[in-house]
Amino acid sequence: MSWIDLRSDTVTHPTPAMRDAMRNAEVGDDVYGDDPTVKALEDAAADKLGKEAALFVPSGNFGNQLALLTHCDRGDEVILGDDCHIVWHETGGAALIAGVQLRTIESGKGVMPVDAIRRRIRIGEDIHWPKTGLICVENAHSNGRVIPLSAMAETAALAREHGIPVHLDGARVFNAATHLRCDVRDITQHADTVMFCLSKGLAAPVGSIVAGSADFVRRARKNRKLLGGGMRQAGVLAAPGLIALTDMAQRLAEDHARAQRLAEGLAALPGVSVQREDVHINLVWFRLPEGTDGTALAAYLSEQGIKANPPEDGLMRFATHWQVDDEAVACTLAAMRAFLAG
Amino acid sequence: MSWIDLRSDTVTHPTPAMRDAMRNAEVGDDVYGDDPTVKALEDAAADKLGKEAALFVPSGNFGNQLALLTHCDRGDEVILGDDCHIVWHETGGAALIAGVQLRTIESGKGVMPVDAIRRRIRIGEDIHWPKTGLICVENAHSNGRVIPLSAMAETAALAREHGIPVHLDGARVFNAATHLRCDVRDITQHADTVMFCLSKGLAAPVGSIVAGSADFVRRARKNRKLLGGGMRQAGVLAAPGLIALTDMAQRLAEDHARAQRLAEGLAALPGVSVQREDVHINLVWFRLPEGTDGTALAAYLSEQGIKANPPEDGLMRFATHWQVDDEAVACTLAAMRAFLAG
Amino acid sequence: MSWIDLRSDTVTHPTPAMRDAMRNAEVGDDVYGDDPTVKALEDAAADKLGKEAALFVPSGNFGNQLALLTHCDRGDEVILGDDCHIVWHETGGAALIAGVQLRTIESGKGVMPVDAIRRRIRIGEDIHWPKTGLICVENAHSNGRVIPLSAMAETAALAREHGIPVHLDGARVFNAATHLRCDVRDITQHADTVMFCLSKGLAAPVGSIVAGSADFVRRARKNRKLLGGGMRQAGVLAAPGLIALTDMAQRLAEDHARAQRLAEGLAALPGVSVQREDVHINLVWFRLPEGTDGTALAAYLSEQGIKANPPEDGLMRFATHWQVDDEAVACTLAAMRAFLAG
Amino acid sequence: MSWIDLRSDTVTHPTPAMRDAMRNAEVGDDVYGDDPTVKALEDAAADKLGKEAALFVPSGNFGNQLALLTHCDRGDEVILGDDCHIVWHETGGAALIAGVQLRTIESGKGVMPVDAIRRRIRIGEDIHWPKTGLICVENAHSNGRVIPLSAMAETAALAREHGIPVHLDGARVFNAATHLRCDVRDITQHADTVMFCLSKGLAAPVGSIVAGSADFVRRARKNRKLLGGGMRQAGVLAAPGLIALTDMAQRLAEDHARAQRLAEGLAALPGVSVQREDVHINLVWFRLPEGTDGTALAAYLSEQGIKANPPEDGLMRFATHWQVDDEAVACTLAAMRAFLAG
Repeated sequence: MSWIDLRSDTVTHPTPAMRDAMRNAEVGDDVYGDDPTVKALEDAAADKLGKEAALFVPSGNFGNQLALLTHCDRGDEVILGDDCHIVWHETGGAALIAGVQLRTIESGKGVMPVDAIRRRIRIGEDIHWPKTGLICVENAHSNGRVIPLSAMAETAALAREHGIPVHLDGARVFNAATHLRCDVRDITQHADTVMFCLSKGLAAPVGSIVAGSADFVRRARKNRKLLGGGMRQAGVLAAPGLIALTDMAQRLAEDHARAQRLAEGLAALPGVSVQREDVHINLVWFRLPEGTDGTALAAYLSEQGIKANPPEDGLMRFATHWQVDDEAVACTLAAMRAFLAG
Repeated sequence: MSWIDLRSDTVTHPTPAMRDAMRNAEVGDDVYGDDPTVKALEDAAADKLGKEAALFVPSGNFGNQLALLTHCDRGDEVILGDDCHIVWHETGGAALIAGVQLRTIESGKGVMPVDAIRRRIRIGEDIHWPKTGLICVENAHSNGRVIPLSAMAETAALAREHGIPVHLDGARVFNAATHLRCDVRDITQHADTVMFCLSKGLAAPVGSIVAGSADFVRRARKNRKLLGGGMRQAGVLAAPGLIALTDMAQRLAEDHARAQRLAEGLAALPGVSVQREDVHINLVWFRLPEGTDGTALAAYLSEQGIKANPPEDGLMRFATHWQVDDEAVACTLAAMRAFLAG
Repeated sequence: MSWIDLRSDTVTHPTPAMRDAMRNAEVGDDVYGDDPTVKALEDAAADKLGKEAALFVPSGNFGNQLALLTHCDRGDEVILGDDCHIVWHETGGAALIAGVQLRTIESGKGVMPVDAIRRRIRIGEDIHWPKTGLICVENAHSNGRVIPLSAMAETAALAREHGIPVHLDGARVFNAATHLRCDVRDITQHADTVMFCLSKGLAAPVGSIVAGSADFVRRARKNRKLLGGGMRQAGVLAAPGLIALTDMAQRLAEDHARAQRLAEGLAALPGVSVQREDVHINLVWFRLPEGTDGTALAAYLSEQGIKANPPEDGLMRFATHWQVDDEAVACTLAAMRAFLAG
Repeated sequence: MSWIDLRSDTVTHPTPAMRDAMRNAEVGDDVYGDDPTVKALEDAAADKLGKEAALFVPSGNFGNQLALLTHCDRGDEVILGDDCHIVWHETGGAALIAGVQLRTIESGKGVMPVDAIRRRIRIGEDIHWPKTGLICVENAHSNGRVIPLSAMAETAALAREHGIPVHLDGARVFNAATHLRCDVRDITQHADTVMFCLSKGLAAPVGSIVAGSADFVRRARKNRKLLGGGMRQAGVLAAPGLIALTDMAQRLAEDHARAQRLAEGLAALPGVSVQREDVHINLVWFRLPEGTDGTALAAYLSEQGIKANPPEDGLMRFATHWQVDDEAVACTLAAMRAFLAG
């Protein structure tokens, strides 16, 4: 298959090394704690994130919902940004599964102002008020931006002051660490629990990790069973997951560099505008010239062997990942130039 | 008892006529549909609101949550203002009971911009999205303002366009109609279901009404039982409720006039500011002079026989109702003047 | 109204003394803890049941569901008899509201064998198992029988051994105490929390009580608000409730005696069979002669001024209460005799 | 690894062919419906079960809970056997996730008497009653027995009569078909939806299937996302799943024959009793001689290279599967004989 797939980094195929690892994985029944490869992955992930323990789960969505369920009492309130993944793309699960009320904050490009959080915290005995059970942050944000460490630290300090836990939706936390040129622990230290995806840019076929204290993970393990996320010989997924966590997490700078290259090239096209200061990771948003026919563009790209989601209201997104190489970037820019010259 | 109680209109005592009505109420077992007084109240309320049917419930909070449960599938999303009663003062019940996700809109003094609603509506088959199951409006708003009929109409039109029902939290809808000098139906026509309180300004001791289509009320009746709100000889509450609905709903203009008088008098006090254009009903917010000792003020008022909630951040609220007469207004203004003169 | 209403004891009208009490009740806003009559009722009820605190709620159904919600974590399991009110007549609320799984036991006429309870208790860390969060007993049972104190004690001992709380659905616990000729505390001591109804045989128009530890009631008060059961000037209901708790709780032996008289009289009718050893309180079940036309019987009784639910599968129930006097018993037996003589 | 693992059929490792299939799987992003191998598996499974459509899910537990959520309205009642997997081993999820009340029937060795089901069905408008939303059957039952087709047919007929859907927990439905020497469709025709496991005896490392009407599967697909069970390049699991569904489903008779051999051999041991008429599939329960030291037995077996769960109350279970060959059976019987000869 020679497609250039720019739709998302969720489309990544497992690497050849991952395919070999799956084939050769040592496995056991993980519901009974018997799978050595899952254990190795969970240990490695906990260590890498600086948490006591970690748990393998079927998806990022699963991991976030599991965190809500495990942190909160039903009826609690969860403070989070109104543009975050949990609000936008998790099918309203938070109310149904955890029975929690989302209390959203209008976020500036993904950063929740700490004063706005403070105003929404509810504690104490007022019978009219739910209690704030959790604060969620997302980094890197699904809008492609990385939240600064200072904002993470401020939020964590406020939360600690009130005894409220913080969950980090870190689906792309290794992209965030790559952008910040920091250890991922410099980010995860500001959260009690972290979810990150082995799929997406790290290219494992299936799976995410939830990490936190040993007690949290023990309770989350039971809740994972309740939600149907206990899998048997999950070592076949953990084996590529280990490669994702080690080798693949180290090469994300390449994806970011290519995203910058794409951004630069797109910005040079007539009528195309790119908010280049918002291109932090492997996601490039750009605005097409007024009047561009989005459907025609997507169709043209497809003819050139390029998969892309059609623009919405003139806004388009390209994602880079290990299957998008330098030639793919050049080919994409050439196709865009040709179409717009059209 | 000679207290002047300005804390809220929820503190209203039943009138002497209500007390007689309770004593003499004809009753039956309303769980079996046998209580003639409850039936009379439900019929009268439905008629007054222009709806097919109505249901007596223990409280406004109960009525709102019942509406969420009856309108929505679990997992649905409900669009509503971030400053509304359901978000602020119903203990996070929406997620726990109805299993719905609240999707809030930053409202301008209670009015949700129709474009902001439109941007949050989610319909169709995208598996990442919950479906918008309900839009809630609140009128009069608990901030004391009345939402214009035009805003109600715009919201209703948008909702109808997408096949989404509208619920009106009309805890004080008769105050709203009084302010707008319109029939209450001119307001309720813009909602599929309405909750209003017989207590609060209408002074019944206990109870609220939920009204809507016959089918909605039939389903709500079963859900009322499920939530434990089926009451036996509820006619003893419906009897004063009928007086609330008829006599008391007609005298709210008096409360509004006294609220205006209070607002005017307070505005004349040195250093006190009142947003007079926001005093629409029987609730007066005002800002005390910088540095006023709120605790001392509340204590002083109490000595003068006046109950008031202490100010928060310098902001204070007085509520008028049938037990606050002209003399009480005068007495309150005198006490405020004396305290602030120090 | 001269009807003899034998359908249930839920149909009882308030007594004249109760009507006066409603009229004259001292009230306040109970959501803010301001209603002296509600406080007096809650204090009296707690004292009578031997519990630290009590809470007024709109119905027995509400009280039971509130107890489930307050005792259990979501996902817990509740052990109870498969013929109890919570399973049969509360609209499936336990799963929806408290999110708990009902684990039923085939009960012998309302008594759960203690060994059967023991076999269903689930504790410990097995991730396949929910944890047993509560055991519920019902006394008097809605089947008309009273559970022996020894069975209550055995269940309580087992529960304490495993650290599991016990909730007593004591909708008719004063009937049970009357039958056992014991203080109601002799029953309620075997449960951590108790719900009983002020309506039913005690004849208050509306309301029930949930009692337990001070901490439980504090948490239940918040959950009552969440479920919409906070009522404003509830003193108008608490005032007749106090009469129910004092005067009416002492006269239940009369209802039981008349139930015995009814049972005796019915047993003497040709072809009618009564399980007389199961008539413990004010509820009399009896089997009609094979081939009796139930609809015709109910219609005939109605013509004679007697309301009764039609038989199901030949089984019929009569309930006595304060509005069923000696003459009503005689009149009922005469009507039954006449009809069956055909 | 030379262990003989008799603990369960959930411990099965993927076969060499499955490992190759994983390595070579053609994949795509299944959340966007792009994975050809998942599609091929879903199509093959639907076809094999005689249903319109099928959905790949992470586990059997997930599949059952997804079926409850998709079939039922919250608050519905589900009729099922008190010894079934959903009641016993799914962590109380039904109330938490789907908000449904389990209404259990004492089943005779897994068969629910059809009259007992009939007595528990609740339909119509009675506000005291939840509505029966689903009937669940389990075949093969986790107790090792196969439910006769006649019982399945009777239950299905009763359900259809009342318009209630039937869900089959068919975790081991291919074992059931093998035992009955029938096509699996002869079983699945008696259910609206079916869950079966590709893991367990079919030896796929991870995954189960839920099948039903096209509309059901469309709604289940959205609910799968909500519950976090949408997986990206799930083709790596579907590829071994296809082998499970085809090759492995045809060899279960071998496991059953070896289970019979084990049962026969165990029955011949002094003091051991086996209910041989209950050994239908690959699960053999047997009772040890009075006084056998279970811990010592398990330890002894372990020394001989045999993994087995220790007996509970003298009752022990062995499971056969593709990794238990004739030699393993012989070796196991020899070890048991040696230990008991003690």
